[in-house]
Amino acid sequence: MIRHTVVLKLKHSKGSAEEQKFLAAAQKLEALPGVQKFECLRQIGKKNNFDFGLSMEFENMEAYEGYNNHPEHTNFVQTYWLRDVAEFLEIDYEPYA
Amino acid sequence: MIRHTVVLKLKHSKGSAEEQKFLAAAQKLEALPGVQKFECLRQIGKKNNFDFGLSMEFENMEAYEGYNNHPEHTNFVQTYWLRDVAEFLEIDYEPYA
Repeated sequence: MIRHTVVLKLKHSKGSAEEQKFLAAAQKLEALPGVQKFECLRQIGKKNNFDFGLSMEFENMEAYEGYNNHPEHTNFVQTYWLRDVAEFLEIDYEPYA
Repeated sequence: MIRHTVVLKLKHSKGSAEEQKFLAAAQKLEALPGVQKFECLRQIGKKNNFDFGLSMEFENMEAYEGYNNHPEHTNFVQTYWLRDVAEFLEIDYEPYA
């Protein structure tokens, strides 16, 4: 299992229509092949500057790469991510033991 | 549901006895009251400098605070965390919708 996560801050103000559009577009990534346990999350900790998170799991690296290279994912990056995201950090996990 | 996560880098070399001791001590946090879905994770992404992660869930903020203030947690922080951790980032989530 590989868990791909990204925590992010948008350029848009909280509760804005632009924020809603970005999150709605991100939610559609759930339907891509290989994506499991997709979650759209609100970052609530006071110890960082991020507001949202996405988390999803893949069975293996091949499935993860298939998602990364899928045209709907690369289109999401081009259309929404590069325009809307101010800061982000990608963190990928596998079980330790 | 609140998911408390922390991603971290240890001061110790990979595979060292000190690394094992830290992770074994961290694993014991699973037994503390209120802790659900505890996970010890390996950070495998190339886009950050962290090596490990801990993830756990709490039913609500009261349970999270109970964990934070539990003597076994504060003792872990004093005994292991402050000595062993070089860098870390805490990220806390709740479901977006």
